[in-house]
Amino acid sequence: RCCNHVQETIYMDYNATTPMEPEVIQVISEALHEAWGNPSSNYITGVTAKAIINQSRQSVARMVGGKAEDIVFTSGGTEANNLVLHTAVEHFRKSRGAAEHGEGHQNGRAGLPHIITSDVEHDSIRLTAKHLQAAGQADVTCVPVSKVTARVEVEDIVAAVRPNTCLVSVMLANNETGVVMPIPEICQRVKSLNKQHERIRILLHTDAAQALGKVPVDVQELGVDYLTIVGHKFYAPRTGALYVNGPGTTTPLYPMLFGGGQERNFRPGTENTPMIAGLGKAAELVTANLSSYQSHMLIIKAYLEERLQDVFRDKIRFNSHYPGSDVLPNTCNVSILGPALQGWRVLSNCRRLLASVGAACHSASGHRPSHILLSCGVPTEVAANALRLSVGRGTTKEDVDAVVEDLRETVELLEQMN
Amino acid sequence: RCCNHVQETIYMDYNATTPMEPEVIQVISEALHEAWGNPSSNYITGVTAKAIINQSRQSVARMVGGKAEDIVFTSGGTEANNLVLHTAVEHFRKSRGAAEHGEGHQNGRAGLPHIITSDVEHDSIRLTAKHLQAAGQADVTCVPVSKVTARVEVEDIVAAVRPNTCLVSVMLANNETGVVMPIPEICQRVKSLNKQHERIRILLHTDAAQALGKVPVDVQELGVDYLTIVGHKFYAPRTGALYVNGPGTTTPLYPMLFGGGQERNFRPGTENTPMIAGLGKAAELVTANLSSYQSHMLIIKAYLEERLQDVFRDKIRFNSHYPGSDVLPNTCNVSILGPALQGWRVLSNCRRLLASVGAACHSASGHRPSHILLSCGVPTEVAANALRLSVGRGTTKEDVDAVVEDLRETVELLEQMN
Repeated sequence: RCCNHVQETIYMDYNATTPMEPEVIQVISEALHEAWGNPSSNYITGVTAKAIINQSRQSVARMVGGKAEDIVFTSGGTEANNLVLHTAVEHFRKSRGAAEHGEGHQNGRAGLPHIITSDVEHDSIRLTAKHLQAAGQADVTCVPVSKVTARVEVEDIVAAVRPNTCLVSVMLANNETGVVMPIPEICQRVKSLNKQHERIRILLHTDAAQALGKVPVDVQELGVDYLTIVGHKFYAPRTGALYVNGPGTTTPLYPMLFGGGQERNFRPGTENTPMIAGLGKAAELVTANLSSYQSHMLIIKAYLEERLQDVFRDKIRFNSHYPGSDVLPNTCNVSILGPALQGWRVLSNCRRLLASVGAACHSASGHRPSHILLSCGVPTEVAANALRLSVGRGTTKEDVDAVVEDLRETVELLEQMN
Repeated sequence: RCCNHVQETIYMDYNATTPMEPEVIQVISEALHEAWGNPSSNYITGVTAKAIINQSRQSVARMVGGKAEDIVFTSGGTEANNLVLHTAVEHFRKSRGAAEHGEGHQNGRAGLPHIITSDVEHDSIRLTAKHLQAAGQADVTCVPVSKVTARVEVEDIVAAVRPNTCLVSVMLANNETGVVMPIPEICQRVKSLNKQHERIRILLHTDAAQALGKVPVDVQELGVDYLTIVGHKFYAPRTGALYVNGPGTTTPLYPMLFGGGQERNFRPGTENTPMIAGLGKAAELVTANLSSYQSHMLIIKAYLEERLQDVFRDKIRFNSHYPGSDVLPNTCNVSILGPALQGWRVLSNCRRLLASVGAACHSASGHRPSHILLSCGVPTEVAANALRLSVGRGTTKEDVDAVVEDLRETVELLEQMN
């Protein structure tokens, strides 16, 4: 197992984060050097920065099928997701305050806004909802995904609706299984509920962090009011945005931060021009090249699954295959079966493969099997062995061959040691 | 007034924002290329990113005389300031809830936390406090600055303290006048109040946005619990940090965002490694070179004021000179007296000078005189003509000569037109 030359690592964790495209680094560098002026300044260096930000806003809007004025830049996906839940609670309070003026001081559960989400959301939704619940500011229903399809089913969302429901927030695609959720169907059903007389409007949000740059994402087709955009998942820098269908007019948006008026007061703070410029460039690339990115990833993932199947035969199980469910073109979640083949153990013994067992944010949570896979009906002993392999725009068949060989050797070694 | 060659602009708005130092751009570029891994990932690309972040944390801590664990990275100063006010209100609620369990449901004003700040704070303090007050979540006292010294006076702060006071937040130096506030004295007095039996602890915060990189800033000498750090005011990128003296242990800190556990859950969201790297490098430069930055700026500002005095004689008034008050070494706030010489008018007719009449965030607020200068006792007609000239590390005497000449010509032109 020793070798005389150092072999390069192979990254298959594109769902955790992506490198930036060279064109993206290029515009960031240019902005770092040339667009450092305060975008609120009236003179040339400020105006230049402002123009870059507005061009980027246009590019990001185009990527999701929205209008430029619907894009609010945030520090990232976590902030965008928090902003949506905050808004839903604030909007409920203000609507209720207006509707029940005088009798609105009921502190009982009946008076709380109700939020519906799924049990496979990212922590920036899950823990925010949990916090609102613990703080007595909202009731939350986490609808379990189907153990057959790994999707949140539309009927389950509808069944969870209560008179006080003010928000449905379901991710567009899961980060671990890659399963695509039925957002258009959810939005359609919820919108017909919204037509009911005297019903409080149920706002519709999807976190598109994992879907952007991998599958087509269009806010009109989805039917959402809010959509979370996370740069570093589509070869852009660590910044983000929230799409809001007519912020403050058609759709409520209540700021969490107060300050110097930037982003029309929805998100003040001097704008991070270089990061925003990079986000815009990466969005342009997605708009221009999505179908080729998608088909490349599909081909590479199919090859990866085929090779894994060839090598490990009946010893593997795919945790990203569910009957009737669409899966992201780049995500392969696989368990190699066997008592000593826990995911973390396999990965820490691989010589070349860089991948993870689930969300990077959970890397410190020890070696427990993923709660997301368990929710999807994966048996505990299979979930414990799960590897999330997510390929990227540049992953090659040679990379796949090398990774499968690396896994084969690693498994052989671990089985011998056992 | 026409000329055959384009003359370069001269930037004297370093209080609005600064360019990044070449070394800072260098480390950002390196991180963009090489440290793109998710800092929460266990493998090498993640570990590299994490190491950069921790080194940066050390550098930022050293700049302000704190410990690495006292630094929480934020998206910028606005977020850091909001986080402090949010924390103070939350802490009050929890302390009260614990102390008065059962009888704590009083909704009257008597039960609200009370925040003391000054009337010359940045909008990220001023409007956040205003919002908390409007939302019925806090009482706020904006202590006026002295019209003699332009400082918040210690006695006025102490006189504003009430039984429910939970926070005193005063900026370290004002962005328009450059006046340095008596933070050590305020902290000393408030700390002796804190020793009183059964008193709720008054937390102490200073927004050091304008002071860092210009004057020595040491959290021990200041005596604060929280200090806001804003990268883009000291040749770092658009990111920031909050110093907290023992976050969550010695000093309370309640997150505004929930998510993947980054920054010890105080501020989740995948870390912006390149920006944080740049912040750390800029902090190192401040630690190493502060005294030379400071003395250079002092010399240049003194020369600027001398030249302005020479040229405009009794036609100018300095709005940054107050008896007994220290002023930032780089900030010259000056009014050229005369009916047609409003600050915005002078600046928009200057050929080379890039400067502002006040905070950049207010650039859209029309041509009203600065409320900060009015608070400092500057007469309305003088305040209307104010120019905030803030010099930087690289400003030269030649730049000053050119700017003064530009101003002389512009004033001559405007007076002829009048």
